[in-house]
Amino acid sequence: MSDVLVVGCGLLGTSVALALRDSPWADVTLADADPAHVATAVSRGAGRRWDGEERALLVVAAVPPGRAADVLIGLQRRDVGLTYTHVSSVQSHVQAEIEAQSPDPSRVVGGHPLAGREVSGPDAAVADLFVGRPWAVCATPGAAPDAVDAVRLLATTCAAVPVDIDPDAHDRAVALLSHLPQVAASALAAQLAPPGPGPGAPTVLAGPGLADTTRLAAADPGLWTDILAANAEHLAPLVAGLASTLQELAQVLQDAVEATPDARPRLAAFLQRGNAGRATIPVKRGELAEAFGRVRVVLPDRAGELASLLVAAGKAGVNVEDVRVEHVPGRPTGVVELLVESTEAGRLREGLQLGGWQLT
Amino acid sequence: MSDVLVVGCGLLGTSVALALRDSPWADVTLADADPAHVATAVSRGAGRRWDGEERALLVVAAVPPGRAADVLIGLQRRDVGLTYTHVSSVQSHVQAEIEAQSPDPSRVVGGHPLAGREVSGPDAAVADLFVGRPWAVCATPGAAPDAVDAVRLLATTCAAVPVDIDPDAHDRAVALLSHLPQVAASALAAQLAPPGPGPGAPTVLAGPGLADTTRLAAADPGLWTDILAANAEHLAPLVAGLASTLQELAQVLQDAVEATPDARPRLAAFLQRGNAGRATIPVKRGELAEAFGRVRVVLPDRAGELASLLVAAGKAGVNVEDVRVEHVPGRPTGVVELLVESTEAGRLREGLQLGGWQLT
Repeated sequence: MSDVLVVGCGLLGTSVALALRDSPWADVTLADADPAHVATAVSRGAGRRWDGEERALLVVAAVPPGRAADVLIGLQRRDVGLTYTHVSSVQSHVQAEIEAQSPDPSRVVGGHPLAGREVSGPDAAVADLFVGRPWAVCATPGAAPDAVDAVRLLATTCAAVPVDIDPDAHDRAVALLSHLPQVAASALAAQLAPPGPGPGAPTVLAGPGLADTTRLAAADPGLWTDILAANAEHLAPLVAGLASTLQELAQVLQDAVEATPDARPRLAAFLQRGNAGRATIPVKRGELAEAFGRVRVVLPDRAGELASLLVAAGKAGVNVEDVRVEHVPGRPTGVVELLVESTEAGRLREGLQLGGWQLT
Repeated sequence: MSDVLVVGCGLLGTSVALALRDSPWADVTLADADPAHVATAVSRGAGRRWDGEERALLVVAAVPPGRAADVLIGLQRRDVGLTYTHVSSVQSHVQAEIEAQSPDPSRVVGGHPLAGREVSGPDAAVADLFVGRPWAVCATPGAAPDAVDAVRLLATTCAAVPVDIDPDAHDRAVALLSHLPQVAASALAAQLAPPGPGPGAPTVLAGPGLADTTRLAAADPGLWTDILAANAEHLAPLVAGLASTLQELAQVLQDAVEATPDARPRLAAFLQRGNAGRATIPVKRGELAEAFGRVRVVLPDRAGELASLLVAAGKAGVNVEDVRVEHVPGRPTGVVELLVESTEAGRLREGLQLGGWQLT
């Protein structure tokens, strides 16, 4: 009996297997509908090829969300594993299939590591894909406690942070926190695309705000069609709500054109509601943006300047939490914004000024 | 006669004055409705207090957009300047007032430096605010060529890049490239805000995508009410168009819930249109995202690690164009994405691996 059977040697499955390599669950067997994927994963040291029979303490289905329940139920009917989990980005519909058809739903606990890359396949897999990322553990009340513990242990063994949440709450949460931002970014970017052939809108006046707001729009359409379709029930009303907020705003703007007296207060109220929503997003480790200070530095665009800046910050004894580089079209210079603990911003400013850095 | 009279000693006006300090236009006079603002700007070395009479080669109105035309026309009637400009983020309505009321509209050329900060007032002003940023020069066909040249010279003297664009095209461009992203970010963030008192949505499963997509939502409501109201005519149809794209998508998602056959192809088409729009955005110096390579590195969250990484990149002879830090809630580690010229990505990977860095 192996420790873990990973079914599906794509990015997530192979990364799970690689993450287990030096753990107490190091004996991993690997399966995939595509033998080449298994061969690649084996060659990368992720584990050994499953013989189609050997049992495992834990079976991990890392297959497309639409296949997860079928795969797990099939293996469970053959009693291949003791506990079963999957890594689907949408949970409720998998859980519903499990509950309808599994010979023992108490042994199946869904999971969702919130990690990924822009690339896919076993070649793209990395052992540290999950380091520090949340890993939703989506137990239902009927789940066996030891099965839940096994899935939590899988998450912590992969260096992820288990987050207990039931499947429906998970799907509602990711609809709001992941799928709605994806839709908003794609919809905004779509307004820049020319409807027919020919050049799009001129973007010479574009700034970093547009770049940030549309970054997610570069997502893979195949993968995201699956995800959006699988969570369509939770996502549809949120998208309709966002559309309705924007439709109302379009009317407020039309009122502003006609100088209706309440147009400006309603614009301000809209922007303030955006402020309030933004303030709910943790910047890091559960902290909110107000806890951080920002220091802006003008940087010549030469190799090594950014490194020198961060070395200077280190000499000032300040840990830089985040870096934002604002490039400027047409000029070989940029402004760098350093995010630091707010109590350290003053010290950083002093240290950099003493070092001759140009603060803005 | 001074070189330049700056009317309005806020962030933009005082920054313009500071930027001119070591230039051929170093003799700057300063005016503001608030004498304390002038005093602050003078104390910072931005220029000398305007006596209310002295003439200037160029008058720059750096006042709220709703005041710019009045201020310029008043000064022009008293023949205070040779050429007149302003720095309003919306141009057409200022231009319309100028054309209706100015004694000589040919001497007035609007401008808009695409630069700003989250803070305001003369204390926040910096000489390098405009370095490398686009500065729209919004001449109309009736403008005197030497007046247009003077405004272009102001832009280049401030180290900005002049972009010739007529006032209406400017307003349409910034409606799409700046004001619509602002509205989208605020509307998305607003969906996270609780409608009443009490906690908002749980954000433990939030990732960097949500943070990026809503960053603009932290904007100042007062300033942005002015901007959105001033450009409402161009912005309203764009917001309605975005709302309509999202309303259609909500219907497609509803169709996906009901397993309508064409729902998935329509979802894919929506995402592909987002891909196409995103691809129109220059990442840097007019280049598009495809020209860059990405290298991802796992970084312990200790002071100085990011600096060491960039020093290592410098040793590999690679110039890092951009840095993105993905922090992970609850864990003291992060993944850093380095953006480099695509031809340099391989060399960077090799250099970092040799140096013992953990690539993903």
